[in-house]
Amino acid sequence: MGKYKELGKLTPISKVLDELKRNVKIRPKIVEKLTVDSVGFISAETIQSPFDFPPYNRSAVDGYAVRAEDTYGASTLNPIVLKVKGFMHASDSPEKYSIDEGECVEVTTGAPVPKGANAVVMVEYTKRISKEIIEIYHPIPPLGNVSAKGEDVRKGDIIVKIGEVIRPWHIGLLTTLNISKIKVYDKLKAAVFGIGDELVPLGEKIKPGKIVSSTLYLIEAFLKERNVSVLIKDILPDDVSVICGEIHEALKKVDMIFTSGGTSVGVKDYTIEAIKKLKPELMIHGLAIKPGRPAGIAVIKGKPVFALSGYPVAALAVLSAVYEPFHYFLHNSALPLKPKVKGILTRRIYVEPGIRGYVRVKVFKRESKVFVEPLAVTGSGILSTMVKGNGVLIVPENVEGFDEGDMVEVELISQLF
Amino acid sequence: MGKYKELGKLTPISKVLDELKRNVKIRPKIVEKLTVDSVGFISAETIQSPFDFPPYNRSAVDGYAVRAEDTYGASTLNPIVLKVKGFMHASDSPEKYSIDEGECVEVTTGAPVPKGANAVVMVEYTKRISKEIIEIYHPIPPLGNVSAKGEDVRKGDIIVKIGEVIRPWHIGLLTTLNISKIKVYDKLKAAVFGIGDELVPLGEKIKPGKIVSSTLYLIEAFLKERNVSVLIKDILPDDVSVICGEIHEALKKVDMIFTSGGTSVGVKDYTIEAIKKLKPELMIHGLAIKPGRPAGIAVIKGKPVFALSGYPVAALAVLSAVYEPFHYFLHNSALPLKPKVKGILTRRIYVEPGIRGYVRVKVFKRESKVFVEPLAVTGSGILSTMVKGNGVLIVPENVEGFDEGDMVEVELISQLF
Repeated sequence: MGKYKELGKLTPISKVLDELKRNVKIRPKIVEKLTVDSVGFISAETIQSPFDFPPYNRSAVDGYAVRAEDTYGASTLNPIVLKVKGFMHASDSPEKYSIDEGECVEVTTGAPVPKGANAVVMVEYTKRISKEIIEIYHPIPPLGNVSAKGEDVRKGDIIVKIGEVIRPWHIGLLTTLNISKIKVYDKLKAAVFGIGDELVPLGEKIKPGKIVSSTLYLIEAFLKERNVSVLIKDILPDDVSVICGEIHEALKKVDMIFTSGGTSVGVKDYTIEAIKKLKPELMIHGLAIKPGRPAGIAVIKGKPVFALSGYPVAALAVLSAVYEPFHYFLHNSALPLKPKVKGILTRRIYVEPGIRGYVRVKVFKRESKVFVEPLAVTGSGILSTMVKGNGVLIVPENVEGFDEGDMVEVELISQLF
Repeated sequence: MGKYKELGKLTPISKVLDELKRNVKIRPKIVEKLTVDSVGFISAETIQSPFDFPPYNRSAVDGYAVRAEDTYGASTLNPIVLKVKGFMHASDSPEKYSIDEGECVEVTTGAPVPKGANAVVMVEYTKRISKEIIEIYHPIPPLGNVSAKGEDVRKGDIIVKIGEVIRPWHIGLLTTLNISKIKVYDKLKAAVFGIGDELVPLGEKIKPGKIVSSTLYLIEAFLKERNVSVLIKDILPDDVSVICGEIHEALKKVDMIFTSGGTSVGVKDYTIEAIKKLKPELMIHGLAIKPGRPAGIAVIKGKPVFALSGYPVAALAVLSAVYEPFHYFLHNSALPLKPKVKGILTRRIYVEPGIRGYVRVKVFKRESKVFVEPLAVTGSGILSTMVKGNGVLIVPENVEGFDEGDMVEVELISQLF
């Protein structure tokens, strides 16, 4: 019983994802970016180091570059005397000096180790007797205090993998290796439509019976957070031919379409009807998810169409469960890791078996224990659960829910915990 | 012994943060943004709902709005007959109809419940006998299938708190309430300088003895990830008066200065000397952190100056330990939660007591156990640990390290786990 009975068999989320992946033909474009502008983008290539780094032996300390053999037996009582041939700074060429038996060169941290030297004595273990002479009080083994050529990065080492989000440390290493450009996935382009005669844009005076097309803006924000460009956003009336025409036109300009509203099996069901008229290769109506059940997922001419509920909470669940993994799949990437916490459920949750549940929860600490309180869900229309909660409890398909007192793991979605 | 002995007493990170907060006078500017453009910004105000939502009773289903009293006793064998006064859609005004005893109005999901009605019978429990007559087979209690006025959001409920990062669900609820603008913290402005005669910009041909100013680019990327504008970036020579002049000029244009290089107590120590000449209100040189010890943290004319190591790994540790919490403090915000995992340490780690350690680690699973392998750290110059690892193990000041086999908690920094 219930208003969704006409949806027939609900399709499990894993099947929805498989079908999407199999039918969708679009991929993000690959563009070359300056490395310094690439942070936050997803790499479209695996980059290997073109050479060893450091490219030559360098000093790891301030001191004197020596032949290790010359220092053996040195002690405070029996210092060894060496001749100082000169001074090398980090900015000097490795060719500036070379040393022979009994000679050394003063070096700063990062300076090349001159030819003939194979170790650096720290300045603390030396005494400068004159401009040309030092005493050494400590022996040093070969390669002591030396960053050896290639010790950090070997030619061929992987610096960034295809599908990795480019982070500051990638930039640090890529620029160290003087790699100035990197291929990244360009932003996907989307159109978002709010569908319904009752919808008005944000900021107008609202007449009775009208509501702001808030799910449209929620979807737009969700996409922007994932670096997608929303090129088209519009409110459409409950009119199949208008919806059909707008989706048809938008498909020429963007990679993906998102709609909100007009998906439930009620008196009116414009969106699904409009999509069907466009002869989709794939049309799934009714997902095994709660909230979000009446959503439609279609593919038209190789491009995905996400027909989401007009209810923000329901739309958000489908965006998280379906769009997000699909997004990272398109970018050859893994889902970002989410902060999680375990806590004790304060109230029983029931979700029908076979359905994946997305339950907004409030996570809090009391007497050093963590508790998870499900927020009242009398319907997917309850918006305030989205901002009163700080976490999401996902109830998998093979579980009917959880009992009061159960230890559950929750995705944290807010800093405020 | 060691090259840092001249730094004298190292300042604990918590003290550095306290001093920074006490001395810094800058705050991010507050600007008004369109709500739809505010995702990812930090709210500079606490917004409360200006009215109840829904603003009037609405139907939660498709069906017939009735007086609950009229349905009592209804059953399949004994249906109750009502007169249909008309049809109301979600886009209709609540004033369109009102009903009396024995009357009803057909409604869609989201439609206003007309005056006189206090419940909605689902269409499944009715039969339309004629245009004007329906039969009802099921009783409904008062408020059954009704989203009551204010049931979702009460006037005065908090929608977003000052210091919260604005996420898609905030946008969903703010736009539902027709709140079209929101005060957010504007981007902070920064200058980043790479300091050293050996440094060259990215992309040039590199002569022996020269290296790319990679830490400058790493700092820039770290700041961009946190929504900071880098207005000035430049490479400066090892020349105290040049450094002094550039910092002095930059302080007129930006909120914060970051430098890399010239901070160690070696033969040369230009950056710290230059900062001291500018008569800072606060000057801390030498932090109780590893890597990152030789960093300097100063405040000049109320603005912070972060004098970081030239080594990317060391600079990154200080950015994470000092700049990041300071950044969120400036925005009245909490640190973002990070994904974490517990695992078994594969090798002993030692950090001197009183020092906070940032150890890059490789987290991996074997036979369903999680292991944490510290990456070889022969010096803060080892860049490759930044990309070979997928986590950071923070060793607190009151711990000397961890033993092989210890269960440790690690911050995950990569999706690749």
